[in-house]
Amino acid sequence: MAWKGISDAVIRRLPLYLRVLEEVEDRDIPISSHELGERAGVRPALVRKDLAWFGEFGKQGVGYDVDLLQDELRKILHLDEPLHMALVGVGSLGQALARYNRRRFLEDPIFTIKLVALFDVDPRLVGSSMDGVAVFDISDIAKVVTERDIRLAIITVPADVAQDVCDDLVEAGIKAILNFAPVKLEVPSDVHVANADLSLELQRLAYYIGVGHGRHQANW
Amino acid sequence: MAWKGISDAVIRRLPLYLRVLEEVEDRDIPISSHELGERAGVRPALVRKDLAWFGEFGKQGVGYDVDLLQDELRKILHLDEPLHMALVGVGSLGQALARYNRRRFLEDPIFTIKLVALFDVDPRLVGSSMDGVAVFDISDIAKVVTERDIRLAIITVPADVAQDVCDDLVEAGIKAILNFAPVKLEVPSDVHVANADLSLELQRLAYYIGVGHGRHQANW
Repeated sequence: MAWKGISDAVIRRLPLYLRVLEEVEDRDIPISSHELGERAGVRPALVRKDLAWFGEFGKQGVGYDVDLLQDELRKILHLDEPLHMALVGVGSLGQALARYNRRRFLEDPIFTIKLVALFDVDPRLVGSSMDGVAVFDISDIAKVVTERDIRLAIITVPADVAQDVCDDLVEAGIKAILNFAPVKLEVPSDVHVANADLSLELQRLAYYIGVGHGRHQANW
Repeated sequence: MAWKGISDAVIRRLPLYLRVLEEVEDRDIPISSHELGERAGVRPALVRKDLAWFGEFGKQGVGYDVDLLQDELRKILHLDEPLHMALVGVGSLGQALARYNRRRFLEDPIFTIKLVALFDVDPRLVGSSMDGVAVFDISDIAKVVTERDIRLAIITVPADVAQDVCDDLVEAGIKAILNFAPVKLEVPSDVHVANADLSLELQRLAYYIGVGHGRHQANW
């Protein structure tokens, strides 16, 4: 069941809470919104507000049952079962992400998102296997997505073909896409695209560089 | 000069506006907050509010002078001059990011952030060169950061050494870090860390996967 109308800003904080809960050692002691917030980097009042969207989990003055809340968050995020993911565009970034994901899935029993297919157009790659994951031709997206029950996709193709790839994934039934291409993808309203744009992140970061190493330092 | 007290949420939108302005073809026609907002994916009222923090750029009912606003945004983000960046941790993700950054800087005259040094501990890599960028030993961070006027750093080392690397970078004078390690880095208050966490992004995305391919589909 999708909780309609809950803003993405709230959704983005849920895995932060999940991460804190997964690391709690003494699981019999309820966790307060204060502690949960401090460890997640979120104001306690906002923690309570966020969680209130999904049910009445906490006990005022006591806190949240750790296992109960963890299970609920996993359900809400569909992380209570293995989720199958595809990656399209097996260039250097795609390969690095594929490797990263395989390692997380194999090393961390809590991480439930499994890369089950790679797609590319390069005939030297198609038909091969990378870290145990098969590389298919892009023309097989619909078939493989259905056969392997793929629910998430990562796009790491060049900007000029990203929209076409996106269209293929959406047509195949994918509703959740992580896009690394520096373009704004057009999708139907029931499809969610998260954009990961390294150059944009660097440009945002550049604001904070400060005054420099002495040569540029102002007399404060 | 740093504009104190402006929230990171505002700063994050500035490169979106910059990107739109850079793509405007007819630069003599003022751009309205409506058009700027639509192309950046931001409400016009928020565009105006954001830009009002930095000066009086627009003319009500007319819009913003494209070149003037672009120049101002570049100054604010320190993108009016080449910025030197380092990357620490030359594993598969680090290499992919290094390659990506080199390509952006070489292909796009507007992109001003230049990777000028790589750091690692692996003796097989130290002393070598990757796509024309030298790989130094991590123990040389302070020296190289100063010599090459490095202002930004990307951390792509394993979680268990990320804080140490961060400490070295901060001690060398770096104030802006993009962290790919899945740990919360502790830094002084004048240092800004942006976190890029792939597994977190995927967990956030998993919320949106919908009801599935038929097997799981409810009777709506």
